[in-house]
Amino acid sequence: MNSILIKNILLDDNKTDILILNNRINRISQNIDYKADKEIDGEKKVVIPGLINMHTHAAMTLMRGIGEDMSLMEWLENTIWPVERKLDNEMIYWGTKLACLEMIKSGTTTFNDQYWRIPYSVKAIEEMGLRSVQSYVILDLMDLSKSDQIKNECSEMYELSKTWGDRTKFAIGIHSPYSVSEEMIVWASAFARERGLLVHIHLSETLGENERSIEKHGLTPTGYLEKLGVLGPEVIAAHCLWINDDDIKILAKRDVKIVHNINSNLKIASGYKFRYSEFRDADLTVTLGTDGCASSNNLDMIETMKISALVQKGWRGDPTSMPINELISLATVNGGKSLGLESGVIREGYLADLCIIDIDSFAFTPNINFYANLIYSANSSCVDTVICDGKVVMENKKVNGEREILDMVNKLYKNLL
Amino acid sequence: MNSILIKNILLDDNKTDILILNNRINRISQNIDYKADKEIDGEKKVVIPGLINMHTHAAMTLMRGIGEDMSLMEWLENTIWPVERKLDNEMIYWGTKLACLEMIKSGTTTFNDQYWRIPYSVKAIEEMGLRSVQSYVILDLMDLSKSDQIKNECSEMYELSKTWGDRTKFAIGIHSPYSVSEEMIVWASAFARERGLLVHIHLSETLGENERSIEKHGLTPTGYLEKLGVLGPEVIAAHCLWINDDDIKILAKRDVKIVHNINSNLKIASGYKFRYSEFRDADLTVTLGTDGCASSNNLDMIETMKISALVQKGWRGDPTSMPINELISLATVNGGKSLGLESGVIREGYLADLCIIDIDSFAFTPNINFYANLIYSANSSCVDTVICDGKVVMENKKVNGEREILDMVNKLYKNLL
Repeated sequence: MNSILIKNILLDDNKTDILILNNRINRISQNIDYKADKEIDGEKKVVIPGLINMHTHAAMTLMRGIGEDMSLMEWLENTIWPVERKLDNEMIYWGTKLACLEMIKSGTTTFNDQYWRIPYSVKAIEEMGLRSVQSYVILDLMDLSKSDQIKNECSEMYELSKTWGDRTKFAIGIHSPYSVSEEMIVWASAFARERGLLVHIHLSETLGENERSIEKHGLTPTGYLEKLGVLGPEVIAAHCLWINDDDIKILAKRDVKIVHNINSNLKIASGYKFRYSEFRDADLTVTLGTDGCASSNNLDMIETMKISALVQKGWRGDPTSMPINELISLATVNGGKSLGLESGVIREGYLADLCIIDIDSFAFTPNINFYANLIYSANSSCVDTVICDGKVVMENKKVNGEREILDMVNKLYKNLL
Repeated sequence: MNSILIKNILLDDNKTDILILNNRINRISQNIDYKADKEIDGEKKVVIPGLINMHTHAAMTLMRGIGEDMSLMEWLENTIWPVERKLDNEMIYWGTKLACLEMIKSGTTTFNDQYWRIPYSVKAIEEMGLRSVQSYVILDLMDLSKSDQIKNECSEMYELSKTWGDRTKFAIGIHSPYSVSEEMIVWASAFARERGLLVHIHLSETLGENERSIEKHGLTPTGYLEKLGVLGPEVIAAHCLWINDDDIKILAKRDVKIVHNINSNLKIASGYKFRYSEFRDADLTVTLGTDGCASSNNLDMIETMKISALVQKGWRGDPTSMPINELISLATVNGGKSLGLESGVIREGYLADLCIIDIDSFAFTPNINFYANLIYSANSSCVDTVICDGKVVMENKKVNGEREILDMVNKLYKNLL
């Protein structure tokens, strides 16, 4: 049995020990006496739940910085799409390894991913020790001649997913209501429900998308998905920027999970008036994501918490918006709940997905309010040690294999340009 | 003669050597042969100008995290003002030391400061090796009975400033058009002009301030200052959030320097629609600042560049807004120009204020676009070595005296609560 004992660490302002047995938190109490395989000294450190990135395209980390300061169509047509056509399996594998390295270094233990060639991503993620949800992405661009091929591939991937480890969940990706035919949306939703799978979709990311939906269907994207009967608690909807009051009622009734991706929304100028307070007041589960490194440029959930709250306070003109305790929940327990995981909380019996923060630095000085310092003052370089599924994936800021990942990526990306 | 030779470092994508003699950049070229007192290996590193933080209240770093998620008046009345009444000289000194430590660690070499008891700040800053502008702050709250005392103190401080080192400039702080009487604004402006001093002022930070100005004077704050004849190229105006087209014409005609402080503006919800493009198109010199750690929570200029650009792109709905090359200028050369310093550019003959970035990390991988990686992907932990005025103030991420600063601040702040 694998065991880790963390000694004298701060948890919610109290010093405690934490015992991990196999992949679960076994005990949280002072003075635990146990001969663990590994002991971690918690002095001048604080433990928080591993962060949960609820919307990303991990392999795109390989494209970091490839198109900057461009209009959306120029960016897609002249940069992203031509580059994506050159991606091969090796690039997906190393791009995902780089993403995992970055997530570990910034305290993320679980992510909800959506990209192509997922077996190569899965290989990378399993080697790196992180937890993830991998979507088979359905994107038929309304071309029904592809339906049979997509259905077969999806079923095959589902079968293959049974060979994956416990840290990797298979899900169905429906790219968006505007890029997937009605037939395939309905088929994908049924496929997911019959098998108890999550569904990962982009929803109302841009105003134009909403306008075209109303023109075509007489309904907002949310209204259209509701009409198709595909909304439910298994649906994780990324962006949700252009959502009206009726949409909120529908999303709440169906218990759809909401992912806010502020950096991407700002950088490609999709919008920024995310209706957090209204979602929360409707009892919706709101979470945070970074989106992929091609649209924003990193996978840093600590920064995402900060910018989400700053922009929320700013556009509402209310400095009390999105307070710190709620922010932490968005990045942790709400993600766990959305993914059906016993994680995002440090509690006995829960998954041992933990992030240990080094507070012996200027950013945590003075040490008046730990979470304010973490979110508003520090950056992710404060992440010292990360445990995922009861295994140490980073210790004292060192990740195994880091050198090789940097070198391989810096060799491979040249083939993309 | 003090000399530093930096070998084989990347400067604008080219490898070069840089020779520093005393406090100036003497030569930039490949293969410089010189026996310098100190040699720095530039392998896997990039040199950029030291960043210039154009508006802060350094000593307030001592109050980091002291009031969070509060409305503005609650924050001021129940938190900041009561705490400020407890500040003593020792706290100002150590608070400023902490601020300098943080600025050095995040690549800032020069800052434009505004706070009380400046001799204690000056002592801290000179010991830490940074360059700064220190304002004597005039804030009479329209009480003319204080005028003589203020004038005397200001004159005394000006005399005292002649004893300060070359890295510290004295300036006149006029707190704001709404908190200082007309008589004192006019007096302060004349005092500054007669002596060739800079003037540091808060301008149009909130909508309410503008509304009250129009009610009282029939003019916007900018219009009112123009009427008083106090606007000129020596004036550094912080915030400038609620500025109309006529104000821009006035500010441009007078060559007033503009400081954008996005984190503070968002966090205390003053506004966010900073009119960067209009300022730039009017040939105004725009710069960036962090404001003090009580309103935002850090002094990180790399993060400030990122959030400034993201929010600008977001609110304008234009991903081409505030492009990377302009962003870098806002944080470097525009600050140097505003402060009358030959800095913010790496050029022979200019001040040796440099920041060396370590690019051997995930955040700079792939290495496609250095500045995109610096601003959008990395955080300030990439800052490796900092040189100010020809002296190394940080090497390999280590600053002298760091331990003592953290310990003293963590002891002293308890007297504030």
